[in-house]
Amino acid sequence: MSTLRRCRLVGIPRPARRASVINSTRSFTTTRLSAQDQKPRSAASRHLRRGFFVVKWTAYLVASTAVGLLTTGAVILAHDALTYSSKHVDRVPINPLALHPETGGPKNLPIASILVDDEEDEENKKLATRPKLVIVGGGWGAMSILKTLHPGDYHVTVIAPDTFTWFTPLLPSAAVGTVQVRSLIEPIRKIVARVRGHFITGKAVDCALGDRLLEVETTMPDGSKRSLYVPYDKLVIACGSVSSTHGVPGLENCFQLKTIADAQAIRRRILDNFETASLPTTTPEERRRLLSFVVCGGGPTGVETAAEIYDLCQEDIMDYYPKLCREEVSISIIQSRDHILNTYTEHISKYAEEKFKRDDVKLIVNARVKAVHPGKVVYDEKDAGGTVITHEIPTGFVLWSTGIAMNPFVERMVALLPNQVHKKAIEVDAHLRVKGAPGIYAIGDASTIETSLVRHVLDLADQCDVNHDGQIDYNEWQVMVTKIKQKVPLAEAHLQHIREIFDAFDSDRDDRLGLNELTALLQDISSKITTLPATAQVAAQQGKYLGKKFNYLAKHETTLVQNQIIDFDEAFFRPFRYMHLGSLAYVGNAAVFDFGSTSFAGGLIAMYAWRSIYWSESVSARTRALLLFDWIIRGIWGRDLSRL
Amino acid sequence: MSTLRRCRLVGIPRPARRASVINSTRSFTTTRLSAQDQKPRSAASRHLRRGFFVVKWTAYLVASTAVGLLTTGAVILAHDALTYSSKHVDRVPINPLALHPETGGPKNLPIASILVDDEEDEENKKLATRPKLVIVGGGWGAMSILKTLHPGDYHVTVIAPDTFTWFTPLLPSAAVGTVQVRSLIEPIRKIVARVRGHFITGKAVDCALGDRLLEVETTMPDGSKRSLYVPYDKLVIACGSVSSTHGVPGLENCFQLKTIADAQAIRRRILDNFETASLPTTTPEERRRLLSFVVCGGGPTGVETAAEIYDLCQEDIMDYYPKLCREEVSISIIQSRDHILNTYTEHISKYAEEKFKRDDVKLIVNARVKAVHPGKVVYDEKDAGGTVITHEIPTGFVLWSTGIAMNPFVERMVALLPNQVHKKAIEVDAHLRVKGAPGIYAIGDASTIETSLVRHVLDLADQCDVNHDGQIDYNEWQVMVTKIKQKVPLAEAHLQHIREIFDAFDSDRDDRLGLNELTALLQDISSKITTLPATAQVAAQQGKYLGKKFNYLAKHETTLVQNQIIDFDEAFFRPFRYMHLGSLAYVGNAAVFDFGSTSFAGGLIAMYAWRSIYWSESVSARTRALLLFDWIIRGIWGRDLSRL
Repeated sequence: MSTLRRCRLVGIPRPARRASVINSTRSFTTTRLSAQDQKPRSAASRHLRRGFFVVKWTAYLVASTAVGLLTTGAVILAHDALTYSSKHVDRVPINPLALHPETGGPKNLPIASILVDDEEDEENKKLATRPKLVIVGGGWGAMSILKTLHPGDYHVTVIAPDTFTWFTPLLPSAAVGTVQVRSLIEPIRKIVARVRGHFITGKAVDCALGDRLLEVETTMPDGSKRSLYVPYDKLVIACGSVSSTHGVPGLENCFQLKTIADAQAIRRRILDNFETASLPTTTPEERRRLLSFVVCGGGPTGVETAAEIYDLCQEDIMDYYPKLCREEVSISIIQSRDHILNTYTEHISKYAEEKFKRDDVKLIVNARVKAVHPGKVVYDEKDAGGTVITHEIPTGFVLWSTGIAMNPFVERMVALLPNQVHKKAIEVDAHLRVKGAPGIYAIGDASTIETSLVRHVLDLADQCDVNHDGQIDYNEWQVMVTKIKQKVPLAEAHLQHIREIFDAFDSDRDDRLGLNELTALLQDISSKITTLPATAQVAAQQGKYLGKKFNYLAKHETTLVQNQIIDFDEAFFRPFRYMHLGSLAYVGNAAVFDFGSTSFAGGLIAMYAWRSIYWSESVSARTRALLLFDWIIRGIWGRDLSRL
Repeated sequence: MSTLRRCRLVGIPRPARRASVINSTRSFTTTRLSAQDQKPRSAASRHLRRGFFVVKWTAYLVASTAVGLLTTGAVILAHDALTYSSKHVDRVPINPLALHPETGGPKNLPIASILVDDEEDEENKKLATRPKLVIVGGGWGAMSILKTLHPGDYHVTVIAPDTFTWFTPLLPSAAVGTVQVRSLIEPIRKIVARVRGHFITGKAVDCALGDRLLEVETTMPDGSKRSLYVPYDKLVIACGSVSSTHGVPGLENCFQLKTIADAQAIRRRILDNFETASLPTTTPEERRRLLSFVVCGGGPTGVETAAEIYDLCQEDIMDYYPKLCREEVSISIIQSRDHILNTYTEHISKYAEEKFKRDDVKLIVNARVKAVHPGKVVYDEKDAGGTVITHEIPTGFVLWSTGIAMNPFVERMVALLPNQVHKKAIEVDAHLRVKGAPGIYAIGDASTIETSLVRHVLDLADQCDVNHDGQIDYNEWQVMVTKIKQKVPLAEAHLQHIREIFDAFDSDRDDRLGLNELTALLQDISSKITTLPATAQVAAQQGKYLGKKFNYLAKHETTLVQNQIIDFDEAFFRPFRYMHLGSLAYVGNAAVFDFGSTSFAGGLIAMYAWRSIYWSESVSARTRALLLFDWIIRGIWGRDLSRL
C-alpha cells in the first residue's frame, strides 16, 4: 500500500512521517526480500510471525471461548435437550387432492391447488384460503419480499432451482476461499418459514396466463423431469438473468460468477491449475498457460475477482507452492471501455487502475474479446492511433463477467406478451407490473422499468388538454409534468426546468405545444433517462416495495372490494422509487466507495469498512457469524488450499 | 432420553428425583405434543425457545466477540498488513532437469529425479541430497509420519489424489451437516511444509521394484492422464482400502462413507430426497421409498450415520419440511451378526440397540444383503427357527459400510510380490516392512501384520536348537518364546503360560518338542492371534512408529554405514506394538465408549465427552476452531438445510 496510507495506518504525526516511513519501508522490504528466497518463508520472519500470532490468538481463543463456551455451552446443552425429543408425527391430516392432484390446464398437467402441508394444522388451513402469491426465484428480490410480507396475509409459494439464497456481493471472495460458500447461503425454507410459506424446488418454464397457472419443471433424484401447474393470484418474476454473450463464440470455455456453484467451480479450477502447474510432468509452456488468469469485463465482479486471485497468490500460493508457480502467474483484465469500474467516478477507477499497475495485474482497455477457445482468449485492441490489432492470450482460466441477458423463463414470458419489446429484460411500469399481464410483477435483473414517454403521448394529451383545443399550454404542461413523474419517476431528474423545456420545444413560439412538439419533447426526455443498473441493491429495494404494497393491499382488501377498485396500484400506492446508496468494490487489501456525491478509496482501513458494510448486509445472523469467523480464520491460518 | 439420565443431567438429588422427573416429563411432553400439530413449531414454545436463544446468544456473541474482535482485530490487521506485500519472485533458480525430466525405467516414462523447487533455496538444495522418502496416501498413517519426522532428514514426497487430509471419524456428522466438511480437512501442503516436503496430486498405480521407481498417474484439468516415475529410497504405502463388496451385486447403487466426497454426496442425496418428497408431483409410494434410509453394516460408521440421519429428521426436517415427510421417514440397519456394534462389549451394543428401538430405527440382525437394486435392497433374514426368509426394502438411500478390500495400487503391489498371499491387504512383518520388498513399508488399512508363525518354524528351530539335537527342550523353548515375541508381538497375549503350552504339545512326553510337535504348537498359536482392526487409531500409531524409526535411522546413519549394518530394523529398532486406547460411537444425542477394561454409555453428557475426544484428536488447531464453531452454530441455528 502507498507509504502515505501506511502512515495513516500506523498514525504517525505529520512532521515525523517521511523519515520514519522510509525506515519502516526499508526494514519492511528487507524482511520481505529474505522471505522470498526461502520456503514457506524465511525461518526467522516465519517463526516471528507464527509466535506473534500464536500469542495473540491464544489470548483471543482463551478469552473469547471462555466467555463463549460458558454461555453457549449452556445454550447448546439446553438446545440439544430441547430438540432431542420423542415427538412423533402420526396421521398428519392431508387433503387427498394434495396426494393425488387433478390434472388440467392447456397441457393437462397435475395442478398443485392444495399442497401436502396445507391442512396439517389450523394456521395452515387458514392460510390455504388466502390469495396465492407465487414468487419465482430465490435471490435478493424474492428474499426481500419474504422479509417484508406480514405473516398470514398470503398463501406464499417460492419456486427456485436452488434450495438456498446466497449473498452475491461476496462471491468473488468465496471463489478463492477468503470466505466459505456456506457462509453466504441461507436455506429458503428457513426464510419462508416466517410467513409459513411453501417452497418448491424447480424451474418455472412457462405460464398459462388465461388460467393463471405457472408451469414448473421439477427433477427427480434419478434425473427424470416432471412438470406441474402452480396456480397463482399474484405472480412475482424475480428469477434474475444470465450472462450475455455479446455474440462472442466460445462462452462454454469461460467461467461465470453468478451462483454458488460458479464460485465453487472457479475455486476448484484455480487450485487445480496450481496443482497441475507444480507437477513434474507439466512443461514450462503449459505452466505459463495454466497460471495465466484472464477476466473479461472491468466491472465490479471482474475487478474484485482479479483482486482476490492476486491476494491468493501473494498470501497463500507464495508460501505453499513451488516459487516457480508464483513467478509464472499473470492476471489480465480485458475491458471494452477506456477505464475499469467505468460506472464509478473517475478518481475511483484511477485509484483502482494504479493499484493494479503496482500489483502488475495487466489492464487491457479499449479491447473487445472476439472469441474464447479452450486455452486461449482472442481479442481486438485499439491502440492510441485508433488502429485495431488482434491479440491472443494463452490462459488456463477465463472469467466472463460482462452484461446480462434474459433467462429462458423471462424470454418465454416476453414471447407470450405481444406488447413486450425490450431485448434484455421484461418491461414493467412504474408500479413494477409486467405490461400486459395483470397480476404479474417483475423485479431485479429480470425486469426493466419502462422509460419511453412517447407511447403515453396520446392519453397524456387527452388527460391534460383541459380546454380541448388539441394543444398543451403552459398550465396544462405543468399538470402533465406531475402526471409524467407519476408514470415514469425515472424522468424526474430531467424535468427540473420545465419552463425552459417547454420553450425549447415550442418551435412555433405560440406558447402552446402541438402534438408533434409534445412528441419531440417526450422523445427527448426519454432518450435522457438511464435505466436502473442490474444490482442487488435495486432488486432488494424493489422486493421491499412489492412486499409493502402486498401488505397494504391485504390490509385494505375489503375496502377495495366494496368500492370495486380494480386498479389498486394506480389509485392507492406510490410508484417505485430507487434510492442509490452507493457502490463499493474490493481491489486487493484496499477498497473503493462511490456514494454518488462523495467517493472514497483507501487501503486496509477501507477494506474493513468494505467488509463491515457487506457484513451488515449479509443474509442472516447465522451467515454474519460465519462470515466474521471466516475472516478471523483466514487472518490466522490463511486460506484453505484444499481442492474441494 | 431416559428419565434417569435426564436426572443425571439436571442433577437433582436422589430422593427428590422421581416426583420432579414426572412433572418435568409431563410438562416436557405437553410442550412437545402442542409442538407436533403445528409448523415450524407451536408459536408459543417456538417464540419461547427463540427468545431464550436470542437472549443467551446475544449475551454470548456480544461478550465473546467483544473480547474476540479486540484481539483478533489487531491480529488480522497486523496479519493483512504483513501478508500484503510487494514481494516479487524473479528468476527462481531451477535445475533444467526439473523442467524437462529425462525419461527411463521399464515403461520409459519421465523420471522426477529433481523437482522444480529442489533448488529454489539453500535449505531445499541441502534436502535434495538426502534419501528420498516417498509416502503414498494422505490419510491418518501418512499424516502421523509427517508429524513425527524431523525436518531436514529426508527429501519427502507425498503422493495422493486429494490435496487434503481429512478427519474420518466425523464423516457421519458431516454427511448430514452437523459439522461442515471444511472443518474436517487440512491441506496436505500445509502439513508437508513443516518438513519442507513436496506434494504430487496423483494416483500411485505401479512400481518398478528393481529401479526403485514408483509409477504415478496424474490428471490434467482437461481430464487427460499422464504418468511419471517418482524415484524412492524408502517407500511407505499408506493409501488405505476400498469397501469390500462381499460379492454382493449392485454396489454402484450404494453410497459409501470413506471420503469427503462421499460425505458431500450423501448430504446432497438426503436433502434431495426430502425436497423431492415435498413436491406435489411425488406419489405417496415414491415418498415412502425416498424417505426410507437403509444402512448395510452395523459397525460404528453405519450406526453413527443412522443416528445422525435420525437427529436430522427430529431436529431440522420436523421444523422446515411438511410434517408428512417426517411421518414417512424410516431408517433401517441391516447387520449380519446378531448384534450391532458387535466389536464392542455386550452392554454397549445392548445400550445402542435399546436407544435405536426407542427412536424406532429398525434393526435387522442376522441378515445378509443379497443384492442392491436402484430403489430397493434385497436381503435374507434368519428367523429364530433358523429358517431363511428373503425380504425387500424399497429405499431412496443405501449406505454400504461393511468390511474393507485392497485398493488397486495395493492389489498391484501384491501381484508384484510372489510371497504375498493375503487376500485383504498387503502383508508386513512386525517392523511394518512389506515382505519381500526391501525399502518398502506399509501401514494402516492397506496393510496387515503377519500372524503366521509356522512359516518361521525352520529358522526358529535353527536359531534355538543350541545342542543341535533337532529337538527343542524347555530351555530352548524359553529362548524361542522371546524370539517369537520379537517376530510377532501380536502372539504375546497367547504366550503367557509357556510351560503349559510346552507340555500340551509335547505329545510323546519326552519333555522335548520335535519338529511336528513344534509346528502344531505354532499353528495353534497363530490361529488364536487376531489381526489389528482397520481403524484410524492403528494407522496413526503405525505412522508414528515409522516416523520415529526413520528419525532414528537418519540420526545413526553414519554409524550404521560404518558398521555395514544392513538390516537396521531387526538389529536396532523395536517391532511395532499396538496399544488400544478404546473405541467410541455416537448413537443419537448419546454416546458409547469401550476402553476394553471399562465401558461407558450415556446421553448428552456422554455426547459431549465423545465430542471433546474427537475435538482434541482433530487434524489441526484450525480444524479444532472450525469444529467448535460448527457445533455452536448448529446449537443455535440448527443445521444448514441447503442442498449444495
